[in-house]
Amino acid sequence: MGRNENSKLLQEIKDGGGGFLDLLIAKIVLRLIGFLFRVKKKKYNRVVSFGDLFIDRGEKAKFLGFGEGTTIYDSSLVVGDVKVGNNTWIGPFTVLDGSGRLEIGSNCSIASGVQIYSHESVFWALSGGKMEYTMAETTIGDCCYIGPNTVVKMGVKIGNHCLVGANSLVNIDLEDYTIASGSPCKIIGKVRVDGTGEVEFFIDKDS
Amino acid sequence: MGRNENSKLLQEIKDGGGGFLDLLIAKIVLRLIGFLFRVKKKKYNRVVSFGDLFIDRGEKAKFLGFGEGTTIYDSSLVVGDVKVGNNTWIGPFTVLDGSGRLEIGSNCSIASGVQIYSHESVFWALSGGKMEYTMAETTIGDCCYIGPNTVVKMGVKIGNHCLVGANSLVNIDLEDYTIASGSPCKIIGKVRVDGTGEVEFFIDKDS
Amino acid sequence: MGRNENSKLLQEIKDGGGGFLDLLIAKIVLRLIGFLFRVKKKKYNRVVSFGDLFIDRGEKAKFLGFGEGTTIYDSSLVVGDVKVGNNTWIGPFTVLDGSGRLEIGSNCSIASGVQIYSHESVFWALSGGKMEYTMAETTIGDCCYIGPNTVVKMGVKIGNHCLVGANSLVNIDLEDYTIASGSPCKIIGKVRVDGTGEVEFFIDKDS
Repeated sequence: MGRNENSKLLQEIKDGGGGFLDLLIAKIVLRLIGFLFRVKKKKYNRVVSFGDLFIDRGEKAKFLGFGEGTTIYDSSLVVGDVKVGNNTWIGPFTVLDGSGRLEIGSNCSIASGVQIYSHESVFWALSGGKMEYTMAETTIGDCCYIGPNTVVKMGVKIGNHCLVGANSLVNIDLEDYTIASGSPCKIIGKVRVDGTGEVEFFIDKDS
Repeated sequence: MGRNENSKLLQEIKDGGGGFLDLLIAKIVLRLIGFLFRVKKKKYNRVVSFGDLFIDRGEKAKFLGFGEGTTIYDSSLVVGDVKVGNNTWIGPFTVLDGSGRLEIGSNCSIASGVQIYSHESVFWALSGGKMEYTMAETTIGDCCYIGPNTVVKMGVKIGNHCLVGANSLVNIDLEDYTIASGSPCKIIGKVRVDGTGEVEFFIDKDS
Repeated sequence: MGRNENSKLLQEIKDGGGGFLDLLIAKIVLRLIGFLFRVKKKKYNRVVSFGDLFIDRGEKAKFLGFGEGTTIYDSSLVVGDVKVGNNTWIGPFTVLDGSGRLEIGSNCSIASGVQIYSHESVFWALSGGKMEYTMAETTIGDCCYIGPNTVVKMGVKIGNHCLVGANSLVNIDLEDYTIASGSPCKIIGKVRVDGTGEVEFFIDKDS
């Protein structure tokens, strides 16, 4: 990823019969990418995708009308009417589907690979396209942690300070301070947050 | 993401010692991206990834030889010999692996994050590279809904009108009209579709 | 995706009020993308994302200081201090989080969608940002297969020749030659690799 290192792509272009313009554009792109790789590695100790080199996470959030301090990766797909509060972190490979309206609070971690829906295409597919998409509004409160690769079904209401484990399917509503996990998820305990922000977990004995 | 807003990247380029050409190219890219963000937000109420700004989902499907009306996101990785019918929706963050041949029917929803394999590298990895990849053809029928983040193992045959829940691992064959869910998946019921396309679910009592 | 086929984007630019420069840049990008799609389809029988058209998987691995023969897709997010050995395959939609240090051995398959952490934002989110991220070093040995969409929690130690099934959550240490699966994962058997590299599985009876 140095300025002239990426000779494999250039060789492929030559081998594939590419012309002068193809090579020139590829060289310009590679030069800039290589430069950005080095700049961002040095500044943030992080190597991001091609898209994230160009799309700033805070500026994408701002463009979407999300709150102050919220960031969202380039790969996150945002559809329809989606509102997000302040200081929420939204990871890569996420889907925020606001086809039927979606609202997410402040200070949440929406981990990488999380998909939150407010529509469903189940009936559409099974009926061979004869039935319509179904829709229902979905909401997530403040200070929630939604674990990696978790899927939230359309219509679900998740309260404040909820903890949802990785790989879960949330198809039920969760009250404030709930711990849930599994696919489909089960409620397995409670979160307590004291005045100073100290967090404690109370896990149900039989879970 | 406005025409001149993305000053953070430009500042990083300056701070990192980038030259005139780096800045110019970055400005041209940002200008076009900002414009496309606004155009697509207005037209489709959707904010897609950098790649999806340029790669049209229908045109990618057409390039791949998939059927009429089928769409596929830019991030979907398509390897080897993959056939897909008409009007099938293929989400982002998907893997369609046709190393050992893969066929998907018409009118399916291949939800975001789904990975469908026709090869496996398990033995290759565990043996320290001494054993080969294994391969077997995988097929999915028409009018199937494959839920978010579900993985379909190589060699699996899924019939028509099947419903597979989110986060599942499908490692067994599924007959037409089967409902399955879980990792590894269990068969939990049947789908019925009447002549008008109306869909009903029959869930097994002890599932 | 041919040289002039992608007329939909160009039409959108015209409809959206784009100027001559927007159209010109879009045409140049589309021309190069269309060319690369055809070249890579012909050479590798594979259609990759926009970013992967430009970012060579081996060169990204080299830039990151990973070992000889290791490859990593463009979409993989690599944060902090991450070391990877030789001949390891790292799929798309993966997260390698080295905030608290991460080490992965040689000859592993880190399947698509795998997320490996050495930090956690659970307490940060639940406390409304009052508590800090937590961190702990995570390690994975040689010759491991980590299945699709699996999440490895911070602080976990996975030995050599381990097999972790798809959709798993690994929140416990795994000794050499362990087979584990599930979310959270359970140990379900042992791998045996003989001198010639032949691999056998011994699955526990009651698992």
